[in-house]
Order: sequence, then C-alpha cells, then structure tokens
Amino acid sequence: MNQDELFKKVISHAKEYGFIFPSSEIYDGMQAIYDYGQNGVELKKNIRDYWWKSMVQMHENIVGLDASIFMHPTTWKASGHVDAFNDPMIDNKDSKKRYRADVLLEDYAEKLRQKADKECAKAAKRFGESFDEAMYRETNPRVKGYLDEANETMARMAKGLEDGNLEDVKALIEEKGIACPISGSKNWTEVRQFNLMFGTQMGSTADGATTVYLRPETAQGIFVNFLNVQKTGRMKIPFGIAQTGKAFRNEIVARQFIFRMREFEQMEMQFFVRPGEEMKWYEYWKEQRMKWHSSLGLGEENYRFHDHDKLAHYANAAADIEFNFPFGFKELEGIHSRTDFDLKAHEEHSGKKLQYFDPEINKNYTPYVVETSIGLDRMFLAMLSAAYTEEKLEDGSERTVLKIPMALAPIKVAVLPLLKKDGLPEIARAIISELQLDFNCQYDEKDAIGKRYRRHDAIGTPLCVTVDHQTKEDQTVTIRNRDTMEQERISISELGNRLQTIVSIKTLLKK
Amino acid sequence: MNQDELFKKVISHAKEYGFIFPSSEIYDGMQAIYDYGQNGVELKKNIRDYWWKSMVQMHENIVGLDASIFMHPTTWKASGHVDAFNDPMIDNKDSKKRYRADVLLEDYAEKLRQKADKECAKAAKRFGESFDEAMYRETNPRVKGYLDEANETMARMAKGLEDGNLEDVKALIEEKGIACPISGSKNWTEVRQFNLMFGTQMGSTADGATTVYLRPETAQGIFVNFLNVQKTGRMKIPFGIAQTGKAFRNEIVARQFIFRMREFEQMEMQFFVRPGEEMKWYEYWKEQRMKWHSSLGLGEENYRFHDHDKLAHYANAAADIEFNFPFGFKELEGIHSRTDFDLKAHEEHSGKKLQYFDPEINKNYTPYVVETSIGLDRMFLAMLSAAYTEEKLEDGSERTVLKIPMALAPIKVAVLPLLKKDGLPEIARAIISELQLDFNCQYDEKDAIGKRYRRHDAIGTPLCVTVDHQTKEDQTVTIRNRDTMEQERISISELGNRLQTIVSIKTLLKK
Repeated sequence: MNQDELFKKVISHAKEYGFIFPSSEIYDGMQAIYDYGQNGVELKKNIRDYWWKSMVQMHENIVGLDASIFMHPTTWKASGHVDAFNDPMIDNKDSKKRYRADVLLEDYAEKLRQKADKECAKAAKRFGESFDEAMYRETNPRVKGYLDEANETMARMAKGLEDGNLEDVKALIEEKGIACPISGSKNWTEVRQFNLMFGTQMGSTADGATTVYLRPETAQGIFVNFLNVQKTGRMKIPFGIAQTGKAFRNEIVARQFIFRMREFEQMEMQFFVRPGEEMKWYEYWKEQRMKWHSSLGLGEENYRFHDHDKLAHYANAAADIEFNFPFGFKELEGIHSRTDFDLKAHEEHSGKKLQYFDPEINKNYTPYVVETSIGLDRMFLAMLSAAYTEEKLEDGSERTVLKIPMALAPIKVAVLPLLKKDGLPEIARAIISELQLDFNCQYDEKDAIGKRYRRHDAIGTPLCVTVDHQTKEDQTVTIRNRDTMEQERISISELGNRLQTIVSIKTLLKK
Repeated sequence: MNQDELFKKVISHAKEYGFIFPSSEIYDGMQAIYDYGQNGVELKKNIRDYWWKSMVQMHENIVGLDASIFMHPTTWKASGHVDAFNDPMIDNKDSKKRYRADVLLEDYAEKLRQKADKECAKAAKRFGESFDEAMYRETNPRVKGYLDEANETMARMAKGLEDGNLEDVKALIEEKGIACPISGSKNWTEVRQFNLMFGTQMGSTADGATTVYLRPETAQGIFVNFLNVQKTGRMKIPFGIAQTGKAFRNEIVARQFIFRMREFEQMEMQFFVRPGEEMKWYEYWKEQRMKWHSSLGLGEENYRFHDHDKLAHYANAAADIEFNFPFGFKELEGIHSRTDFDLKAHEEHSGKKLQYFDPEINKNYTPYVVETSIGLDRMFLAMLSAAYTEEKLEDGSERTVLKIPMALAPIKVAVLPLLKKDGLPEIARAIISELQLDFNCQYDEKDAIGKRYRRHDAIGTPLCVTVDHQTKEDQTVTIRNRDTMEQERISISELGNRLQTIVSIKTLLKK
C-alpha cells in the first residue's frame, strides 16, 4: 500500500469508526475544521492525559496552567503577532482564488528541482557506474541552470518578504510566468500581508467595542502568568509550566486533514532557566521529548530531529521532532530555546517587572525559556497513521487493526456474551459493572463473535472478553489479545489485575 | 462570617493559592475572563474527569464527542441564536455606560418589592401574633401599591421585549425615572438588541471572508453530529452523547467572579429518546443529576430544584439545580426537555433527514432530547465556596482548610521530610517516585512541619506523609488527615493501598 493510499484509508477509517468527522457535515462542512467522534474524543483525551501525567505529575518542578483563549490585546502586540504574524497573499483576478505568494514561488522552485533530478536520473542511466552526480549537477549547463534559477528565485523572494518589498514578490511571480492553477490566467492582484489571527469585538461600554484576538498560540498565556505561578506556587528555577488548550489561526492554505487546522490544540511546556544555562536544558528537553515519543512504540524509524538553520526572532536554538506522516516527514513537536525574548517584551509593554530572585546566586534576572510544543491533533494523526494496519490472516481472510498503544485505546475492553440468551448477557454486564470503575468498557452482543472481534480490532480495543456457557459453570471467560489474536481462558476474578498489567497508563509512564 | 465576606475571602484565597488569576493580569486584566492557576487547573480537570467518568464510562449507552468551537454559520441560524440570542441594551449619554434595559427594570421592580417587605416587617412588629401577612399584602394600599407597580412594570417590559416594541421599553425606563447609577442622569439612548455571539471573519477566497461565530453553547455540536455518532457507534435509542468544551458569550453585565464569564466551559449530555417518553427521562435525569451532586458531599442543603414556569421556545419542561452560592441560590445545572426542536430545525436548514429507525416499533422518527447541562466553572466555584472553612483549633490557633472532595483535590498527597538533611529528603523523594505513577504528589521541604501542614490544608491536600528519623529505622511514616488532623504511623509499603481507599476517584464513582 503506498503512502497516498494509506492516507486516504486512514481518513475514511477515521470517519467510519467514529474517530473524526468533518465539522458541521450536515451543512457540507467547514474547511480545515474537524470534530472528534465517540472514539476520537477518547483517544485524544488519553493522549492529552498521558502527556499531562508525564510532564506534570511525574516532574517535581513542573506545574500546570489553564489560561483563557481571550487575552489582553497588548499581549499580541508584545509577542509580535499583531505586526508580524502574516502570510503574503495574492489573488488571481479571473478565478477569484487566493494563494500564498510564497507557496506559489516555492512550488515553482520545486518544479525546477524536479526537472534537475529527472535529468540526473536520465544521465545516470546513460553513464552507468562512472556517473558522478555531484559533478554533473555543477557542470551540466541545463541541470545547473535549473538549480541556479530555483535558488535565485527563493533568495529573491526571501529578500522581498524580509524587506517588505511586496512589489518585487509580485514582479517575481509575473516574471516567472506563474499561472493560477484554476483559471490558467496570469492576471494577479498586488501581494498583501494577511494577518493569521482571528479578531472579534468584545463590547462592554458605549464608547465602542475592543478588538480582541483568539490566541494563535498557547505559550503567551504562560508568559503573562509567569510571576503569578512562580510566587503562589513557590517555584524555584529551573521550573516549568505546562498547558494544553485550543489555539486558532486563519490559515489560507489548510490541508492534509487534521495536520493543519484553523482550530487546533497545543500541549506546551515552558521551562524557565537561569540565563546561560539554556543550551543545557535545550539539549535535555530534546532528548526527553524524543524518549517520550519512543515510549509509545510507534516505531523509532518514524521520528527524526530537524535542527533549524534559520531561527525565529525569539530563538537562539530550535529543533523539530519530525514524524513520518503518510505525506512525508513533517513537524510533530518543536523544542525552542526562546531566550528571554517573551518575558522582556511583556515587561516592556506592561511596565511590570517579570524577574526572579535566585537565592543560590543572590541575583535578580529575567529567566530564559526552553519550550516544548506539540500539536495534539498532529499527535493523533501520527498515531492513527502509524497504527493503521491491514493484515492477511492464516485462513486467507483479512483484518484491519489499529495498533495504537494499548494504554491509550478509546475502549480498553469489550465484553461479549457469546449468545444473547441463557443468562450470558447478564453475566457480561455484571463483569462490566465491576471493571468500568477502572476502565472504559464496551458491551457488544450483536453479530457473530468473529465479526465483533473485527469491529474491536478496527477501533484498537486491546482486549475482548467473551462470556460463554462454560462461564456459568466455572466462572472463567476467554480473553483475546488484539495484536496476537491469541485467546486464553482465565477466571473472572483475575480480570481486573490482568487488565491493569496490560492497559494501565502506568505501563507507559514506567518506560 | 457573612456571605459577602465569605465570597471576598474565596476570591482572594483562589488567587493567593494558585487556583484562579485574573486573565492577563500584567495588562490589568480582562473583564469577566479568568485563568486557572497551577492548583485550579488540577481541580478543574478532576471535576471534568469525574463528570466524564460518571456520564460516559459508567453508562453503557452514553458516548462522548468533541466538536469544534467553530461551526458552520447556518447552525446558529437554525438554532435561533442569530435572530434571538440578544440582550436589550441602553446607553446613558452622559456616563457613556451601557446597561441591560431588562436588568435596570428588574432592579427597579426588586426595589419596590423590598419596600413592600419592609412595610410588612414593620407591621408584623406592630401587630404581633395576629398579623396575617398574605392579607396585609393584598389589602394595605401602600404595600399593594408597591407590589402592583412591580408586577405591572415586569409585565409591560416582558410584552415590549416579546413584541419587539423596544420604544416602549425605553418609555418605561423614562416613566419610572430610572437614573444611571454612575452619572445619576436620565439621559438615555434608544434601546437596541445586542447579539451575544462573538463573530469573526474566516477568510479563504478572494471573494471575501465569511462571518463565523464562536459557539455560544456546546449543545449544537452534538445535534449536528447526531447521525454520525448514532450510525458509526451503532447506538440504539435511548442513548446519550456527552461533551465538555468552551463556549463564548459577549456578556455585557458580567459579574460574580467566575459565575458568569465571557469564556466558559460546559459539560453537557444530550439524551435521545422516543417521542412521548421524554417526560420519563426528564424525571430520570433530574434525579440522577441531583444524586451526582450529592455524591460530592458538599451538603445536601446547598442544592434545590427550581422548575421553570416560563419555558424557552425549544422546551416542554425545564428545571435548574440551584446551588447556594455566597450570593444566593443560583443555577448550577439545567435539565431541559428540548423536544425535537433542534433536530427538526437542523433538518429544515440542512435539507437532510436526521431521523432514527426504531427496530422495536418498526418506525422512523426524529428523536426527542433531554439535556443535562452544567457549567464547569460554576461547579468549580460551588466547590470552592462550600469547601472554604476557617477553623479555630484547640490550641487557640486558626487554620484555613479547603474541604474539597478528597478524590478531586489538586494534590493528593504531600510528602514532607521532617528535616532537610540526614537522608530524609532522599527517602521522601523515593516515596514520591513510587506514588506518582498513581497520584499527583508534592514534595515540600521548606519551613517547619506545622507551617507545611497549613499550606496543604489551604489547597485541600487530603494527606500529608512525613518522613522522620524513625523512618530510617523501621520504614514507617506518619500520615496526617486533612479533615481530622489525626496522625497515624504506617509502613511505607502500605501507603499505596491506603491512598487508594481515600483519594481514588472510585470512592466517588461507587456512591
């Protein structure tokens, strides 16, 4: 199964089995917004809870926070979002379609690079073993021409955007003869900067309403609360503040299912450290976060670091943990050394000191910050696509099974009476009423037992417990493992302990 | 301590101990918006999780959902929010302050009723035992005059609002001589309807952006997903869909701390039933929800039902569970029989059938809905104010203790080395590293042990475990109970089990 096909299957499986629905689907949906269904909400909650437990409960010096989505508008002035959180947009006058100017140019450069690759591939065939690709790229006029043009295009675009010379970005698009993919026309408007924050009016006085923004990131909620948490929590540096919550961006080009949405959820931790020690902690958190991902067992080969060459204005070091999504390796989590940029900016705009007195060195300072920031929806998608498996069984039949980490599965155990009679449903329900205090259970009596197993494979249920006639005699049930499909007969009284060892969140936290 | 004083103390305690901070406080805050601090986030999460477990995990026929905050704008046309989710506002031209016209008039009527009460109280004193209050209210001209005027004012206002005759609402304010509390002036603007939804622009095409709304309630996310969940989850009526999440209302008059906020969180369950059976389920859920509140142990006397006389356009029965807040009995949760109003409205606006085929009666129908809807922030406030206790101790000293349900406390156990030396901190940390897999623990070594106990009383920590020199000899620790303050010496190896019996969420779920 190729990756495109896998991606399509994951999306349709997510809908068919109640993980993810298009938002407001009866009204034909909303672009780049999705709802989590009955199984999706549980998986998402389990991922969030696992992150929270790993970060907050397991660390003596990390505490939580839940700041509101609405923040004082000056927050976004200080953070730079009001002035610089923009995408350069251009409209085609004929199709009326809007595009990101930088994406049009990047696509153009990418096509040139692909042409160069094709030429190289052809030459490699022609020359056989003696072919030196690097030399060929540097000397063959056509190949070199493609690559030079791609680089020049990117450089000129970058300069135009940096200098705010949007006229030249437009000129570049026109010079390159880039056409609208819809209309085929080269009839473009000016390039304009388009702010990605959603604004709304908050009214409380007759003088008029104030424009406030939906937060485009959760991090600032932590920074403005830094002193409140430090003082009331008596926190000593180094310490962290963790937060999960929604953020909003008016993305123009939103695609790839739940990978880039207009409404999404972040799980962030800001770690406050002594200035000068930030690189030590940056390396520490890079390692810790990669270990956390490994603990999930989705395959170490699916992760890699990508260190940033070009740093954002607030950072002195930054790396992504990339995941091998069906559409390639893409950012799943960012680890950023944000320096004291944010706290200093808030000091400046609020006129209040955001400093810490460090008793060990007897000094006041504005702390440096190392951030770990992961997209919960991306984590969900990573898990779904790594877990989606189609298997051919020995008897020639097939099954689809979601091999998500057992401790995070939406339903931990399905309890299935073999028949809908003879008192078996009553026994099954009695078992559930014991287990459900600890585990999310599901009762399921419809269809043949094999079909029920398949249904639970498809939503990733780790264990199926089947109640049959022997149960009435000796108080035993069969317990079937999702991954091995092996069945074992155990006593009802052992079920609770057995489940604990297999599906408890502790199995992950201990790693 | 009177109720006003209690309320002030709760608010300042909430800030001092990291439960609730004013949002964006360094920028002088945002009206009617708050952030949850390091202890608040845990308590809020625990309440939310307990509700979720009680509603979803413990019920075979209730599943969850997590719909997005942004929904298709037609949703709010269908639900009636675009046309009718308004407050009538009036501005004072001198103070430039904006008021809710209905609140001005209600306050006016309330003052009349208070005058009548005062007259009655005076008369009761004068007449002694022979005083018949009901008769006096009906016959004494002055008292009757007050009450009649109050009733007439309310009736005329209600008619004006219902008929959309806002001119008459203004005329009524002027006739009654109502003045602005700030400026004292009676110089009013027209009365205007002001929609409470926050709107924003979602842009994706050059043709212009679409106005979308932040959801003012979470319920509609469930209704538009009704069929998706029913079909993919193979749900059979009666069944419920539960959801927690943020909702937003541009309240003009927002007050009473976190009781009425512009950004708040709901915990809702919509229960879909066969038409004609809704009253049975309405009564069932009224009883169930009251039982749930009772299980928390905040005092049965703090709850009461308030059945609605006047029903919303979508309901055929409705009741509130009111809680005795420091500012009086107010709505904490609503149980509403919403009929098929919402599903029918969405059928009409989407052109899609939202029906269920009921195999038992072999019929298609649009289900009726019974809703239970609770404000998470209100629940938090109810808990905080019922739990806040000042106690005089035997030795004459005082303590402040938050008697929140132990299973919901932010920190379950504090582990305290008696001294910062002699290897006691190491033992304390070793204990934590065992317990923290199951419980949120806190290590605390600063200050005398008594002061540390007080600190944990103040944030509601159920148990303090103290490590002393005897611990090194016999592997025992003292364990201190928050409420009884009794101390007991137990073996370290027993700690886990002891904690389970006292602070596990199962202690609540079993009730």
